[in-house]
Amino acid sequence: MTQQKKYVYLFEEGGKEMIGLLGGKGSGLAEMRRIGLNVPPGFTITTEACTDYLKNGTFPAGMMEQARKALKEVEQKAGRRFGDDRNPLLVSVRSGAPVSMPGMMDTVLNVGLNEKTLSGLISQTGNERFGLDAYRRLIQMFGEIVFYLPHEEFREALDSIKKRRNVEEDALMPSELRELIASYSSIYDKHERKFPQDPDDQLILSIEAVFNSWNSKRAIAYRKMNGITENMGTAVSIVTMVFGNMGYDSGTGVAFTRDPNTGENRIFAEYLTNAQGEDVVAGIRTPKYIEDMRKEMPQVYDELVKTCGILEKHYQDMQDIEFTIERGKLYILQTRTGKKSANAAIRIAMDMIDEGIITEEEALIRITPETFDRIMHPQVRIRGGEKLLGRGLAASPGAAIGEIVFSSEKALESAKKRRMILVRPETTADDVRGMFVCNGFLTQKGGMTSHAAVVSRAMGKPAVVGVESMNVNTKTETLSIGDIVLKEGDKVTIDGTTGNFYLGELEVEEPVMDTYAKRLLSIADRYRTLGVRANANTPEEAKLARENGAEGIGLARTERMFLGTDRIPIMRSMIMSERKDERKKYLDMLLPMQVSDFTAFFRTMEGFPVIIRLLDPPLHEFLPDKESIITDIYEAKKQEHIDEDRIKYLERMLQTVRNLEEFNPMLGFRGCRIGLVYPEIYEMQVRAIIQAALNVIGEGRQIYPEIMIPLIGHENELKAIRSNLEKTVSDIKGHEKVKYKFGTMIEIPRACITAGSIARHADFFSFGTNDLTQMTFGYSRDDAEGKFMFFYVENGILEHDPFSTIDRDGVGELMKIAVERGRLSNEGLEIGICGEQGGDPATIEFCNEIGLDYVSASPYRIPVARISAARSAVIKKDAELVEKFSKY
Amino acid sequence: MTQQKKYVYLFEEGGKEMIGLLGGKGSGLAEMRRIGLNVPPGFTITTEACTDYLKNGTFPAGMMEQARKALKEVEQKAGRRFGDDRNPLLVSVRSGAPVSMPGMMDTVLNVGLNEKTLSGLISQTGNERFGLDAYRRLIQMFGEIVFYLPHEEFREALDSIKKRRNVEEDALMPSELRELIASYSSIYDKHERKFPQDPDDQLILSIEAVFNSWNSKRAIAYRKMNGITENMGTAVSIVTMVFGNMGYDSGTGVAFTRDPNTGENRIFAEYLTNAQGEDVVAGIRTPKYIEDMRKEMPQVYDELVKTCGILEKHYQDMQDIEFTIERGKLYILQTRTGKKSANAAIRIAMDMIDEGIITEEEALIRITPETFDRIMHPQVRIRGGEKLLGRGLAASPGAAIGEIVFSSEKALESAKKRRMILVRPETTADDVRGMFVCNGFLTQKGGMTSHAAVVSRAMGKPAVVGVESMNVNTKTETLSIGDIVLKEGDKVTIDGTTGNFYLGELEVEEPVMDTYAKRLLSIADRYRTLGVRANANTPEEAKLARENGAEGIGLARTERMFLGTDRIPIMRSMIMSERKDERKKYLDMLLPMQVSDFTAFFRTMEGFPVIIRLLDPPLHEFLPDKESIITDIYEAKKQEHIDEDRIKYLERMLQTVRNLEEFNPMLGFRGCRIGLVYPEIYEMQVRAIIQAALNVIGEGRQIYPEIMIPLIGHENELKAIRSNLEKTVSDIKGHEKVKYKFGTMIEIPRACITAGSIARHADFFSFGTNDLTQMTFGYSRDDAEGKFMFFYVENGILEHDPFSTIDRDGVGELMKIAVERGRLSNEGLEIGICGEQGGDPATIEFCNEIGLDYVSASPYRIPVARISAARSAVIKKDAELVEKFSKY
Repeated sequence: MTQQKKYVYLFEEGGKEMIGLLGGKGSGLAEMRRIGLNVPPGFTITTEACTDYLKNGTFPAGMMEQARKALKEVEQKAGRRFGDDRNPLLVSVRSGAPVSMPGMMDTVLNVGLNEKTLSGLISQTGNERFGLDAYRRLIQMFGEIVFYLPHEEFREALDSIKKRRNVEEDALMPSELRELIASYSSIYDKHERKFPQDPDDQLILSIEAVFNSWNSKRAIAYRKMNGITENMGTAVSIVTMVFGNMGYDSGTGVAFTRDPNTGENRIFAEYLTNAQGEDVVAGIRTPKYIEDMRKEMPQVYDELVKTCGILEKHYQDMQDIEFTIERGKLYILQTRTGKKSANAAIRIAMDMIDEGIITEEEALIRITPETFDRIMHPQVRIRGGEKLLGRGLAASPGAAIGEIVFSSEKALESAKKRRMILVRPETTADDVRGMFVCNGFLTQKGGMTSHAAVVSRAMGKPAVVGVESMNVNTKTETLSIGDIVLKEGDKVTIDGTTGNFYLGELEVEEPVMDTYAKRLLSIADRYRTLGVRANANTPEEAKLARENGAEGIGLARTERMFLGTDRIPIMRSMIMSERKDERKKYLDMLLPMQVSDFTAFFRTMEGFPVIIRLLDPPLHEFLPDKESIITDIYEAKKQEHIDEDRIKYLERMLQTVRNLEEFNPMLGFRGCRIGLVYPEIYEMQVRAIIQAALNVIGEGRQIYPEIMIPLIGHENELKAIRSNLEKTVSDIKGHEKVKYKFGTMIEIPRACITAGSIARHADFFSFGTNDLTQMTFGYSRDDAEGKFMFFYVENGILEHDPFSTIDRDGVGELMKIAVERGRLSNEGLEIGICGEQGGDPATIEFCNEIGLDYVSASPYRIPVARISAARSAVIKKDAELVEKFSKY
Repeated sequence: MTQQKKYVYLFEEGGKEMIGLLGGKGSGLAEMRRIGLNVPPGFTITTEACTDYLKNGTFPAGMMEQARKALKEVEQKAGRRFGDDRNPLLVSVRSGAPVSMPGMMDTVLNVGLNEKTLSGLISQTGNERFGLDAYRRLIQMFGEIVFYLPHEEFREALDSIKKRRNVEEDALMPSELRELIASYSSIYDKHERKFPQDPDDQLILSIEAVFNSWNSKRAIAYRKMNGITENMGTAVSIVTMVFGNMGYDSGTGVAFTRDPNTGENRIFAEYLTNAQGEDVVAGIRTPKYIEDMRKEMPQVYDELVKTCGILEKHYQDMQDIEFTIERGKLYILQTRTGKKSANAAIRIAMDMIDEGIITEEEALIRITPETFDRIMHPQVRIRGGEKLLGRGLAASPGAAIGEIVFSSEKALESAKKRRMILVRPETTADDVRGMFVCNGFLTQKGGMTSHAAVVSRAMGKPAVVGVESMNVNTKTETLSIGDIVLKEGDKVTIDGTTGNFYLGELEVEEPVMDTYAKRLLSIADRYRTLGVRANANTPEEAKLARENGAEGIGLARTERMFLGTDRIPIMRSMIMSERKDERKKYLDMLLPMQVSDFTAFFRTMEGFPVIIRLLDPPLHEFLPDKESIITDIYEAKKQEHIDEDRIKYLERMLQTVRNLEEFNPMLGFRGCRIGLVYPEIYEMQVRAIIQAALNVIGEGRQIYPEIMIPLIGHENELKAIRSNLEKTVSDIKGHEKVKYKFGTMIEIPRACITAGSIARHADFFSFGTNDLTQMTFGYSRDDAEGKFMFFYVENGILEHDPFSTIDRDGVGELMKIAVERGRLSNEGLEIGICGEQGGDPATIEFCNEIGLDYVSASPYRIPVARISAARSAVIKKDAELVEKFSKY
């Protein structure tokens, strides 16, 4: 005979490490028993038995025999017998998957009661009402769960008696309960079912029902929504019933070992005396609090406080406990790590460090960057009953409430008068002024790097973009989604953290950066090895970045400096120039402006390195679009006094725009390609950088400019540009006082592959993961996110949008190759990342893994980046810590 | 005392393997001496001495001592003494670089003659006229080369005497020659120079002059043009003078060991009796031929024939020989592998195989693909004096002559009446009809994959594109370049092999695919390991591909099948459909058309594998452009009887076009992305392929369809599409009779990087190196080639246009990674290339190197591809063979 597989574990045989096999509830009960807490006797049938059952449709061989043997041991411990007429053991049959799925699966209570054991229970407790009530509850629950009999029919039967007798449910008299049991019985009859009197039948059918509940529609939907795998199955725990409704020395309740809202170290509990668990949940009676228990049952109170302390130390986190008091004796029925607000989570972790319960490393693992991010933005508080209107891309985190408005003009009209959400098909540069006065943005089109998304993140305001299911009509000023049509002034709440948006005004939790959060950040700074810099283009942004803890600038774009009203006409003339001397004339006019821009910028970043990227976008971006020039020419020609010079100017501009037109501007004439063909542009910029550095050095400040060339794909590009610009620098008086570096963006696949040769001409690399992702995947971010990215992510083709989180296998692999080859040929190479993904926790972890020197993120993301970097450092040293905190 | 470096080698000490040190001439003379040919005694000063001299401005220490010592040995062999009054030795001082630079550097003859040795020479030869002539030649040559005295002045002095005496140059009497020497002397005086009487001074100054000639302007220009490195230097050979002008038993000439035009195995020689080498070159007297020598000097003839045989066997190739006969004795002064026509090169190689001189492998190495390609197209024959108008990209090889025409309409008007070259700023689909009636194309814009380039290669007609220096004005119908303005009807010759184009009608060599070429192809097929397939979209192209030796189709694009007038309206309706059932309705209408297309196509490729790529381009390419729809709507609304349905249709089309609009269509919604979002499109195509295969199988033919999915970047894309399409196939009755494969284009960097996982779902990979190059470099080919590619190549940023030849370091490295990772996870994976570069010899060599199974090229390129593949196979086995044939 072969050894039978073990499908059943007594609580004495299990522990928390067996969560995969025994589920959360089973392993928790076993663990509590192991550490000496008072848990009712019982056992657990494994998740393996469940998956086996679900595959074959029958219990695996030996399972029920093992269960019956375990039940015998439980009988012995409880001193009662299952199905015994005089001293019957009653059990609950409880579901419990390895991953928490609250309320999703079924539980049957009071299993073991029948006409005969009922009298035993009554004589044993001396409480007829209690016994009959337990029996009718079993009949109802069993009917609903095992036979899928309609809940409403049981409800109606109960209501009808309550109405007739005009009493509340828990005041029903034995005779009334017997009448109820009879009506329940006729419900069974009506559906041609029979309540089994054999307790063994009850047990078998209940176990089967719990197994089957794994595949209930709601459970499947829940798993799909929460990304839980399908093949795990649920365990079933058979637990001796204890009763909180055996009089006023009995009771039942739930407790949090600390305050889940504030994190304060005090037990937070609610309980009812003479009640069953479901009564607490049902909310029929007003619950009592922990302070009442202290007075009402001081012994139980002491026991509970002690238990909470034991559980917290053991699980090293705030616990959410279910307990029952049966005739003055405290039983713990469940414990799990409790849900809490982000601020509470941080405070608890900090306190627990002081209490010696967890280490700093453990705190860094426990407080995920996502948790920390929640305290940076207002958060929607979901209470149930909200009207979810739709879902888009979570483009910029946080919650915002406001009246919808369909144009920037309208928004500007009522600026400061009301809170507004700007709703647009998509936003453009024209909307930026309007965006300044709105609280959040909602767009129909666009992806994670669309205009709306990028601007909202830069402004630190919530945004939901790319809601393809919504139709925004700017003419009629309506937003329609399904059958709902909203118009200006209607209120919505958008949740940029999840991408959801709701009708009306939802409850919102305001962000608090308290002392606990600040302490966590300072701990993080001690652990992280990765530097954290900011992407900032203005002195204001740089200031914010410093305040948030940035240790330098990872990317300062210079192109915005050309857009000021005093510069753009010069810039345009420069672009329209046909000869080098002409171009130089205009560049000479731009030089002092750039010097003053850089000087102001450098002042704010005193003492830090600042990476400045030379001109990157295609030149046509600085010119008006073709249509508007054509219109201007047309208008100019209609004037009474024709201004020939202006027409000539416009026609030349039109010709320039036509010459610059491209099929795929992303892959066209931009970045270092412009820098090579028109070297005088970069020369002017470098002159301005060095001159500005000399200015601030002259003021007694230190600054470390790093000059970055965009779009390098071949070492020869960098070699040629560098040697030319070094000549430019050496022509500047006093240049030797400036400690500058010279490096390149790595944003083209070829740059990664040939990083070894490129590194010979670079002091630093900075991964431009936006473009690198575009080219590695062949996705135009402007197009992909509207057209197919959503489809890809929804249908599991892609795990996530690679513009939000680095694609490890493709883009990440290229980055790894670049780091290896780059460092091999240039040991001292400084390597960072300045793409949008630089502020994303998973990306930061990856960057830490492959050995980057720093990440650079938006000023608003700096605190989260510091947390992520520290977490990554801890994980790199001890990957098992994550396991520890993700399981229990 | 340290060992002095050896700067001087007697001919006895050298050999052909020392070409780097002794130059082509020096090593050749040494080698000929080594194999027993009659070479005048002499020695060579090394290239090292030259580079040393050019660096330091003085001869390296010991060089002249070594030279004088060598001269002593030469004196002994010649039985004369340098500078001896009675029996003087004269020498020539000849340049000779390791790489042939014909006519670029200087040579001084008759060194050693002065007033005293002159009388020795005269008494020795008994020929005063000869002696004086030799002396005046030395004075002139020395003056011009050593002192840069103006050639014209010597010319004038000579002309003046000839005129005065009314005689030809070689009929000048001694007295006249003395007079000439006196005038030469006054030229020296005028420029304050003095002809050195000391023979040693003559030697030193001549050597110095030859060294310096390495850095003459014309030599530098020549090297730049021919890509020869600057630091090589020239060797100097000092050779005993032999004289062909010592009477009618003397003479001088050149000989090709075979006919350089036809390759026929007969000596082709020209000579003059009683003449010096320069007289042959000058063309003053009509030369005699080898047949004359047989009669005139039978002994010398026999000697020459024998020498030719020895040299050919030794050098294993046709030789180009310089010889001198001095008083009946044959001296060989130079030998080198001779230039010949492509057809001659092939015939000679084939003959030499039969003669046992070279092996088949050697023939495959010697006949480069570029040589073979020349016999496929008419070639411009450059004679000198051509008027080069400009240079663009060599987009499609071959020469074409014609009258220029500026529009397709004009071309069509005079079709068949004249030969025409279509000149356009750039071509579009509208020009294709016009292109059919023209002989070649010339465009101002566009790159190697521009419309004009692609269409010309597909038509097999010559094209030069992207001539940025040219201005094409279609309104005035003029082509202006520099100061030249051409108009319709002016004749030009374009050379699509080099990218040059010329004014007027040049001599053109017509292509001949003779039996020798066919034999070489069949040899190639025996050696190559790489398969050769064709890119073909129509049965006509497929037929040509088969005739040219293709072993299957590597890429058949299906999109052209949707463009027929009967299909395009259905295709458009399909694209405009809003619902799946609507789309399916139109796809069902397209199905039978695709079935019949594929059936016809498969018939032509009976017995071969055929890769069919499913729909790839963005859908908007099948719709009219926005402007034309807007115009149509406008027109429709102006009609008297308004057709509401048509307007609705057009408006819906406009809306579709707007929805499909993209910023970077290259990186947008196309390829498998469409296939995933609208699976019914690929389903229809696969149904058509399998049904068509069943049709031809039903006719008793065999066919192996390979279904290819474009633009895969993630394994999940391929996995999802494959599993869906396999279901589609399995629903077709009889499908099991079709042996089909399922694979993917590898054209996205991410696909290369993740080839390991993609290969698990693919039977084959085909590198789409056009897109792969675009994305790896971040170059939009439509934009880059017009905007900066030319600049990049011209300025050495890029070695070559990566759209013509695979970029080994970047794109090639990604391909290598893909091959390795792909084969590692799927051993039987079939891998090929179908990008434009697939027909390029360097690319084919690379593909062979990294282990591809086949290359696929345009039908016209198949023969060259077969040659390239064979050559690569031979190189892979024996890389030294290339060395062997590239040196001598």
